[in-house]
Amino acid sequence: MAQTAQARPDTQAPPALVRAACSGGVLTLALSNPPANALSIAMMKALKGALDRARGDDDVKVVVLAHEGKVFCAGHDLKEMTAHRADPDWGRAFFTETMALCSEVMQTIVRHPKPVIAAVGGVATAAGCQLVASCDLAVAAHGARFATPGVNIGLFCSTPMVALSRNVSRKHAMEMLLTGEMIDAETALSFGLVNRAVPPEALNRTVSELAQTIASKSPLTLKTGKEAFYAQAEMGLAEAYDYAARVMVENMMARDAEEGIDAFIEKRKPEWKGE
Amino acid sequence: MAQTAQARPDTQAPPALVRAACSGGVLTLALSNPPANALSIAMMKALKGALDRARGDDDVKVVVLAHEGKVFCAGHDLKEMTAHRADPDWGRAFFTETMALCSEVMQTIVRHPKPVIAAVGGVATAAGCQLVASCDLAVAAHGARFATPGVNIGLFCSTPMVALSRNVSRKHAMEMLLTGEMIDAETALSFGLVNRAVPPEALNRTVSELAQTIASKSPLTLKTGKEAFYAQAEMGLAEAYDYAARVMVENMMARDAEEGIDAFIEKRKPEWKGE
Amino acid sequence: MAQTAQARPDTQAPPALVRAACSGGVLTLALSNPPANALSIAMMKALKGALDRARGDDDVKVVVLAHEGKVFCAGHDLKEMTAHRADPDWGRAFFTETMALCSEVMQTIVRHPKPVIAAVGGVATAAGCQLVASCDLAVAAHGARFATPGVNIGLFCSTPMVALSRNVSRKHAMEMLLTGEMIDAETALSFGLVNRAVPPEALNRTVSELAQTIASKSPLTLKTGKEAFYAQAEMGLAEAYDYAARVMVENMMARDAEEGIDAFIEKRKPEWKGE
Repeated sequence: MAQTAQARPDTQAPPALVRAACSGGVLTLALSNPPANALSIAMMKALKGALDRARGDDDVKVVVLAHEGKVFCAGHDLKEMTAHRADPDWGRAFFTETMALCSEVMQTIVRHPKPVIAAVGGVATAAGCQLVASCDLAVAAHGARFATPGVNIGLFCSTPMVALSRNVSRKHAMEMLLTGEMIDAETALSFGLVNRAVPPEALNRTVSELAQTIASKSPLTLKTGKEAFYAQAEMGLAEAYDYAARVMVENMMARDAEEGIDAFIEKRKPEWKGE
Repeated sequence: MAQTAQARPDTQAPPALVRAACSGGVLTLALSNPPANALSIAMMKALKGALDRARGDDDVKVVVLAHEGKVFCAGHDLKEMTAHRADPDWGRAFFTETMALCSEVMQTIVRHPKPVIAAVGGVATAAGCQLVASCDLAVAAHGARFATPGVNIGLFCSTPMVALSRNVSRKHAMEMLLTGEMIDAETALSFGLVNRAVPPEALNRTVSELAQTIASKSPLTLKTGKEAFYAQAEMGLAEAYDYAARVMVENMMARDAEEGIDAFIEKRKPEWKGE
Repeated sequence: MAQTAQARPDTQAPPALVRAACSGGVLTLALSNPPANALSIAMMKALKGALDRARGDDDVKVVVLAHEGKVFCAGHDLKEMTAHRADPDWGRAFFTETMALCSEVMQTIVRHPKPVIAAVGGVATAAGCQLVASCDLAVAAHGARFATPGVNIGLFCSTPMVALSRNVSRKHAMEMLLTGEMIDAETALSFGLVNRAVPPEALNRTVSELAQTIASKSPLTLKTGKEAFYAQAEMGLAEAYDYAARVMVENMMARDAEEGIDAFIEKRKPEWKGE
């Protein structure tokens, strides 16, 4: 597998920014540049590369986005960005590249054929909070905290809010965006930004159980459903029903639905063919 | 009333799949094919027929969608669907018919001129959960449970998610859709899928009080408002305001608004004319 | 400042319907026509005028929408509206003017370059509830209550629901709209209609702290972010990211972002230039 190869020790190569490990159908991608796990250009390319490789890898049923160190991800690399203010264009080209790549990474998660679960053990701020919001599911440890603090440094979290405002209600999103203040894991749970808030020692187990539950489903069905979910979310009701009904008919014609329904009627465990 | 006629005992006719009873302006439509109350073609046609008859029936102010037996509704009739895999087209035409009819039933609820309240005393899964999400309001008994478990049988709940994702936040919807697991009534309440979770013995009373409160309003006003609610939900803010302002002016010109406002100013009970 | 001038005692002028006071960058606009603080044409014009003056006033960083008397705002002035039923057109032109002006006031709040916080110490009904929903943030005292009761008088709260349904989930909005019943501050908090519910004696302090927190940010950044928030909310995901990425690049090129990021890296307090 390409993913585990990336984690191979190699004295010639720089240390991996994203460590990949696959077990039981669950690929864990850990941001591995503590303390901030900042989304530098290199980190975003590493993450996008790992996600792209997982796309067609049949061994991967579910992706878990995790982190090394205390911080999940503190957002963009401000020092890297500031250094480019010395460019002839005062950094415009570099900032454009950064924002385009960031938006691409986030949409790569949303459009990924495999469900992506964020496992958040620490602080997730700015584009780090956006990563959590962009995942299909998220589990937070009790000590995790979330913020979109760009407003504190004169740089409103405008791209993070695209993901945030599609997860939480308007008043909640606006409170985070306008004050820039941290919310704790329980508040994130009540806002709908994460699915579970658990004791730190239960984080890995909770994520693992959730991932394994999902990894036991038909990959084709997961891919079909996830794609349809985000597509129909942007449609009016009538159009969404026309579209979803067509998706459902195609899904019924697939072997995995035939097998799944037969197994259900016969009260046995299904064997997915992925077609 | 057409609805009560349907409940008339008739030794020639098959037992009614949807039992209708109207009292005090509240039409109760009970899915009556336990144990699963499955949405077979016949059940969907019976439900759509009953809803269509209620549309123009002045005796009906509010519709309650209830059930006989322990299960509210377990979704489509998988055996009926599986039987059609023997068709020359391997079932494609039948599945297309099923999904089209299902989507039509759900949109009949949303577009119905009378408010529709789900009274959920038991399990509501797949298209059964979609029924609950499609109703304007829903009350659950504490023992009720909800799931979109299609992913377990290789058939993602793609049409149910159209309704579900317009009721609950993305992470909550995705958790239900990707895991296929049951949530209890309290969780459904916290997700916003139902309006109330009450002890089983209080279900009928709670629904009845809610229905009677709404049945005491002007039917014209309810029709106007419900239609406008779902229409404006699909518009941008400026367009929604232009539209809603026009709706409000027409509503002001109706006799029921004149009567209602006069009664309010004169501190008396209004008498609705329905015009 | 234009705002404080409006509060100047003037024996020739009618009493101000909206009292304005500015302190520490926070402009408080108090609806000042108790007991109902009804949104008569005069009140809506006064509120819109005060908001328009605040738009370009550099002394104003944040606007607080407050009230004198026990009621926040009870909605439109029904007696004023009813009087126009004697017009040759039975009031149609007046109702049209009222709804257009009301929608304009609400959109003036949403499109205002400064964040607007509702401080709700009492009842907020119909267009009064819409005001709360239209503000970026809202704080309620424990005794505050909220309703969209138009359905009780034959006049569905169709324009209020445009704002309400963009704040709370469908089932919650429908419950308020169809029953017309009051919800208390805690319920409003759980629905996401307000950000905080606090003891009455803590209302002013809580609002003031929230307003001052936000007033300490760069006004340019707040304007940029608020405008982008509501714009991207109406877009699909890909379009929203393209748009927000462009906003973010422009934001990076502004002096306030350079100053804010430099101050953050140098661990000092930023000094905003507003450009």
